[in-house]
Amino acid sequence: MKELKERIQRDGQILGNGILKVDSFVNHQVDASLMDHCGQEFARRFAQLGATKVLTAEISGIAPALTTALHLGLPVVYARKTKPITMPDQVYLTLAPSHTKGRMVELIISPEYLAHGEKVLIIDDFLATGATILGLVRLAEAAGAKIVGIGALIEKTFEGGRAALQALGIPVESLASITSMDGGKIAFDGN
Amino acid sequence: MKELKERIQRDGQILGNGILKVDSFVNHQVDASLMDHCGQEFARRFAQLGATKVLTAEISGIAPALTTALHLGLPVVYARKTKPITMPDQVYLTLAPSHTKGRMVELIISPEYLAHGEKVLIIDDFLATGATILGLVRLAEAAGAKIVGIGALIEKTFEGGRAALQALGIPVESLASITSMDGGKIAFDGN
Repeated sequence: MKELKERIQRDGQILGNGILKVDSFVNHQVDASLMDHCGQEFARRFAQLGATKVLTAEISGIAPALTTALHLGLPVVYARKTKPITMPDQVYLTLAPSHTKGRMVELIISPEYLAHGEKVLIIDDFLATGATILGLVRLAEAAGAKIVGIGALIEKTFEGGRAALQALGIPVESLASITSMDGGKIAFDGN
Repeated sequence: MKELKERIQRDGQILGNGILKVDSFVNHQVDASLMDHCGQEFARRFAQLGATKVLTAEISGIAPALTTALHLGLPVVYARKTKPITMPDQVYLTLAPSHTKGRMVELIISPEYLAHGEKVLIIDDFLATGATILGLVRLAEAAGAKIVGIGALIEKTFEGGRAALQALGIPVESLASITSMDGGKIAFDGN
């Protein structure tokens, strides 16, 4: 998606350890209009899947998941990383490593909002190793829901996430695929 | 706002300790369409303030702040509760008590995204005691920004937040004002 790639090229910052900082338009400050366009594009790509719910993880997944849900006319559920007191005692919980936090985090969903037989579209900000998304997949499967598609704003192809998701046999779409950040330069694939 | 009040009346659950659970449409599962309508209504009410940025706190403030920003054509900044490694060492940080977590939480904003002279519209999910919103006000003031308006989806008038914000002398708008949850019944004011 041209608009997103241009924005990453202009405002993304490569930090150490393969970290791409997009805090000025995705992760701390959010460009609402860009997120809306990304949601529209996800909705277009996933329109034929018959999804009944969009699933993401707090915090950075919320903005693109919300705009995607808006354009698909679906509700969105975001997995919590700490269990609020409003959540029942019995929950779906899994652990996933967080790249930017440098530790394992919990991903928690209440059984109230993910039902057996639902068709789930997962949307997140990054597809890197795929660890967070695989955590969401485990939660959805625990609930008896079916994953029908996975979308990420930004994929770092060199971290292997797409291969890790391949066994699911479902469409995986990213709006900007970064093939290299070597030498301080961001290179995208041809899409 | 009629649509929001009706939804609260239908799906809100009163838990102990004055907690209103709205996890099925605001705080865990999000009704994207309802959030969009709420954002549109905030944009209408605050259209004349000349805001340059929408400010909120992660996590539950993100959805209504994003849709408001979308309808106003503004970026949104969400204060983080933990400092990610992408954030510079020098930040604006304040503490605020969290009602649903039962402890103090940090609210952190990078100076990169809140500049001197900006006109800030604060949007959050709840206005209860006003503690979180006052935390955001302190952060904005530390950055030399000016608060021009405050909006909350749901106000619990009996927790005194509006009085706590009165000294700011700016418009405070809520889309659903709850005057009582006594006896397991939710009562709204006339607006």
